[in-house]
Amino acid sequence: MHGKGNGGEQAPPRITVTGVLGIPEIQAGARLGVLIAKAAARQGDDLVHGDVVVVTQKVVSKAEGRLVRLDSVLPSPFAAGFGGRSGRDPRIVELVLRESAAVVRMDTARGILITETKHGLVCANAGIDSSNVPGDDVVSLLPEDPDESARVIRADVKRETGKIVAVIISDTFGRPWREGQTDVAIGAAGIEALMDYRGGMDAVGKPLKVTMTAVADELAAAAELVMAKTSGIPAATVRGYEYREAVGSARRLVRERSLDLFR
Amino acid sequence: MHGKGNGGEQAPPRITVTGVLGIPEIQAGARLGVLIAKAAARQGDDLVHGDVVVVTQKVVSKAEGRLVRLDSVLPSPFAAGFGGRSGRDPRIVELVLRESAAVVRMDTARGILITETKHGLVCANAGIDSSNVPGDDVVSLLPEDPDESARVIRADVKRETGKIVAVIISDTFGRPWREGQTDVAIGAAGIEALMDYRGGMDAVGKPLKVTMTAVADELAAAAELVMAKTSGIPAATVRGYEYREAVGSARRLVRERSLDLFR
Repeated sequence: MHGKGNGGEQAPPRITVTGVLGIPEIQAGARLGVLIAKAAARQGDDLVHGDVVVVTQKVVSKAEGRLVRLDSVLPSPFAAGFGGRSGRDPRIVELVLRESAAVVRMDTARGILITETKHGLVCANAGIDSSNVPGDDVVSLLPEDPDESARVIRADVKRETGKIVAVIISDTFGRPWREGQTDVAIGAAGIEALMDYRGGMDAVGKPLKVTMTAVADELAAAAELVMAKTSGIPAATVRGYEYREAVGSARRLVRERSLDLFR
Repeated sequence: MHGKGNGGEQAPPRITVTGVLGIPEIQAGARLGVLIAKAAARQGDDLVHGDVVVVTQKVVSKAEGRLVRLDSVLPSPFAAGFGGRSGRDPRIVELVLRESAAVVRMDTARGILITETKHGLVCANAGIDSSNVPGDDVVSLLPEDPDESARVIRADVKRETGKIVAVIISDTFGRPWREGQTDVAIGAAGIEALMDYRGGMDAVGKPLKVTMTAVADELAAAAELVMAKTSGIPAATVRGYEYREAVGSARRLVRERSLDLFR
């Protein structure tokens, strides 16, 4: 994409990441692609061909009606047991287990529950949480198919604006070994989420050792920088990033269990 | 930092990430802060107060003379054994072990060696690799103290330009559970690497569940998007990000072993 720099003869690679303000509180059935495109236009950032639109999971879950009232949940004996021993709400534990294919780690003393979701994502609490959800007794589940969520938003952006963009659904995950959370891509449309450089050469002509870059995760992380958790900004645009167009799926970012040394 | 959006009355949060072209091949003793500041200015991107300068580990290691000729390395019996069984160069295995405090995983069949470095970083091969290093028989080690590396670059930028910037040293790491690598921060100066939102409220007034964000890792990831591995761009600037000024250290991003469920 970019050649070796020689200062002045070539435009430096540059991307701009912008938070989209003015997106209203999202109700079930909302057309996020339309709302985001309109809000971006209102702030003078009309979407253009090649933009990457990053949308946080929370508003996607709201638009898709993936909110659950805890008083509707009856915990299983196992969920009630872990909840009681760990000090966690047994109804949330029950929801986490319902959304999960496998438990990766349970730490009773610290109340930590890390599972593999039905999508294959490995994260705390199957991605369930209550922040930025109105109501004391309501939590959000992850979208059922975040790639499909991204495709719907992408199609709505095209219908509203005529522009072809890529869409990433992001969520905030912890990780082993390192403190702090970062945003990663749980859904993608219109972009190759995982760039495969195998067979390429580095700048000194050696075969590349770094073979696969999780560009969708890096885009999600970049977007988080303009959507700090306290700010109520649920979407951002990334302009100027030369991604590879593809149908797109964040499933490629999920390591197969049999290849994972840490599950 | 940013209030709730209301479209038009408030400037949208926006950051710009720019690759710095024209940085020459780095020799031991090079003043990276000076070279980066000059190269940025040549392309019309003079550094300004509050910029974040992200510098890849490889050039830092070169500037600090952290290159090793493999023909100078005598493998221990253990390194020779693992090298022989796994098909890895025993001299590289030896260097990995010398740089490590502990082995986290050894996979002989796939030749995978994940260790905890003396800095506490957990990564493949103790961060040793040969890409973008001239010479067939030469590899780079991680800087001995990447926070100190960042401090030196920051001081040189100030001396050269008078501007106060933050500096992040980045490297490309794999991670459990997810395919593809992303850039993370292994050193930091002038910036709080880990933002602690404990005690804060979300946009609907609930206490925040996401309590700590690894902003330095997200900045490193954003920078990678303009420094694709094949391109020979070893530094980038991030402008417009409102970080918290601090002495800064990437050590806060390293989880204590006793708190880590995956070591």
